[in-house]
This record gives sequence, C-alpha cells and structure tokens, in this order.
Amino acid sequence: MTIRYPNGKLYKPSSETPNVLKAKKKVKNLSFSNRGKTLEDEINETNLFYLNHQIAVIHKKPVPIQIVKVEYPKRSAAVIREAYFRTASTTDYNGVWNGYYIDFEAKETESKTSFPLKNVHHHQIKHMEDVINQQGIAFLIVRFSKLDRYFLLPFKILLEAWNGIEKGGPKSIPLKMFETSSYEIKPGFNPRIDYLSAMEKLITNKEK
Amino acid sequence: MTIRYPNGKLYKPSSETPNVLKAKKKVKNLSFSNRGKTLEDEINETNLFYLNHQIAVIHKKPVPIQIVKVEYPKRSAAVIREAYFRTASTTDYNGVWNGYYIDFEAKETESKTSFPLKNVHHHQIKHMEDVINQQGIAFLIVRFSKLDRYFLLPFKILLEAWNGIEKGGPKSIPLKMFETSSYEIKPGFNPRIDYLSAMEKLITNKEK
Repeated sequence: MTIRYPNGKLYKPSSETPNVLKAKKKVKNLSFSNRGKTLEDEINETNLFYLNHQIAVIHKKPVPIQIVKVEYPKRSAAVIREAYFRTASTTDYNGVWNGYYIDFEAKETESKTSFPLKNVHHHQIKHMEDVINQQGIAFLIVRFSKLDRYFLLPFKILLEAWNGIEKGGPKSIPLKMFETSSYEIKPGFNPRIDYLSAMEKLITNKEK
Repeated sequence: MTIRYPNGKLYKPSSETPNVLKAKKKVKNLSFSNRGKTLEDEINETNLFYLNHQIAVIHKKPVPIQIVKVEYPKRSAAVIREAYFRTASTTDYNGVWNGYYIDFEAKETESKTSFPLKNVHHHQIKHMEDVINQQGIAFLIVRFSKLDRYFLLPFKILLEAWNGIEKGGPKSIPLKMFETSSYEIKPGFNPRIDYLSAMEKLITNKEK
C-alpha cells in the first residue's frame, strides 16, 4: 500500500521499526539491488550499520502527527482513527558521533544540473542555524537521483545560497557548486551512504 | 478531549506545535499556575525558553506511529484513518547545548520514597548506553510529583541500579540516593525546570 504526504512525497514507516526487527529485515534486503530505494531507505540502512558497529547513534525522527481520535478496542491495541500530518519544527535526522552533535536533512532531486532550493523549508534553515550556533554539525545530504551521485552539503554553503535568493540570486545550487564546495559521498555496499566519512572531512576543514 | 497511550499515559500533542505559535501560546499560559501540568509540559516550556533565548536546541521527538490507512479528501488535508502507536527505539528528548550532545528521558512517580525502575524500558537503557559510548550526555529527569521535587539522575547511577536488579538488588532507586547521587532541580518560573544548570554541574564533575 502506498501512503503519501500532503505534498505528494511517499510515506515510509520503516524507520520506526524496532532495531532488532530492522536488523533482520535489512540483512535480508542486502541480497537485493539498491535500485528503487529511496534516499531515506539508504540513510536508514546506513544509520543502522553505524549503530550496530558502534560508529554513531543517529536516528530518523518520527513523522509528527496531530492525533484527534483514538479507539480503545477490548483485548487489542489502541487504534488511531483520526489524525493529521504536521509540519516538523526540526530536520529529520539527528544524533551523536564521537562527541559531536550531528543534524541533517536528506533531499533528492531529479534534476541533472542543479538542486532547487524549493526543496528546503524555512523552518529547516532556522533549525540548522540554531544548531550551528550551539556548535553542532549541520548539513544536507543531496542525491542527484538521475546521476546516482550523493553530496554532503555544509550548512554554510546552503545558507549562502538561501540568503542569496533575497538578493536576486539563483533559486537553485548548481551541480558545479556541489563539485567544488561540498563533499561527494560514493555509494557503497555497507554502509550504503557513508556520510560520516564525508562529515569527518567537513569537521577537519572547519577546525583548520 | 483526552487521548491516552496504550499504557494509560496521557497523549500530549502540544510539543509539535510550530515554534511561533507555541511561543505565543506559552506566553499566554504563563499567567496561570503551573499546577496540574505534566512533566512533559514543563520540559517543553523549558525547551522553548532555551530555544528562544538561544541557550540550547532541545526538542521532544514526535510519538512514533505506524500508519496503515490514509484518506485524501478533495480540497482538504490528508486524514489518517488507521494507525497504531509504536515503541520508540530512543529516548524522548535530544538536542545540542554548547557543543554537547544531550539525550534524556523524563519520568514521573507518585511515590514519595523511591523511583520504581519499571518506569524505564530496556531500549531506553540500551540507547543511553550507546549515547554515552559516543561521548554524549545522557540522563533522566525524575519528578516526584507528590513532593514537587525534580532530579537530574546521571545515566551512570541509573545503569548501576538497573544492572543491580539482575543481581537481586532493589527494583527502585530510593529518594535518599537521589539526594546524594543526583542533581536536584528547583522548579522556577521561567525556565520552569532549569535542567541545563544541573547538567552543567554533571559535566563539570565528569570532567574533573
């Protein structure tokens, strides 16, 4: 069954599966091709790999829901009968690696030439700014789906482009900019999207 | 309308209100007494205070839900018609303060003499252990509701008590232990539960 958000994006409940079940399921999945997987699937797999190998503790946040009506059937679990999707006030992923607070959002684009900034929301920018002000690490993971290329875009670059729009700048970040100012992540087997390696480079460059 | 979790705990949707609305609402609330508020309300208010004053960025995670059926009425928002509560794989609160990754769970007890460990779940212990291994800061905030006393209990003390159960130790942590081995938080006006001040003491003692 397919469930969609009001914006048409696919709903993916898999990320909230208890870890034990998830581990089993994911191991099974590994025998299949990664084609057709969403970026969210790939990042959830990667996070599970990091967790199981004690590399980092990073989780996707549950989808925020406004619950209106719940039924309590006898001898079975409570059923939510009316609820609505809410706008999150943060990004989707956060956690801890080696004493660093990590916070990011994952975005996909079908474009082969640039990443449209309409994919990013004001509250996400605001949240990532707050995170940076508290010395956290914030970034976007961007997948150019048609090119099968992945980039870790530092928040600083995103913010410059975002602020540039008000001054009449472009409404998207060109692929070229990703090639020069972000960290490319080569997709692999396990971990699928090893974004922590890219992030370590980001931290090293920052601390220089 | 009252919504309850399967365990009978009250469901509180307020934490996912967009920040702007929340700020307005909370300011209004301040003219009322804090009596009758849940610990979750108090912590959400405190987190909002921290956020608005750029002291820290700490959010409650949304309640994890397994969505089964969604309707898409014309010209109005998608409605979730069948969904179930899931068990979270992490604690309820996390965020960043001054470069530190912060992770905690909030618990209330009606007992006047001890905190029953049945209030804590295995997956929460596991998660906080993972966090500590990544040099994050993990703790419980415990409210003895009948006494109107609040404590920040370091994860280390919680874990000792938890592991002690297997060896035939007590199934609860006595109030006395809180008085000697945790950090008491004096409830105030704004911030209501200034747990970061208690946490700073915890960090100072750790780094000694």
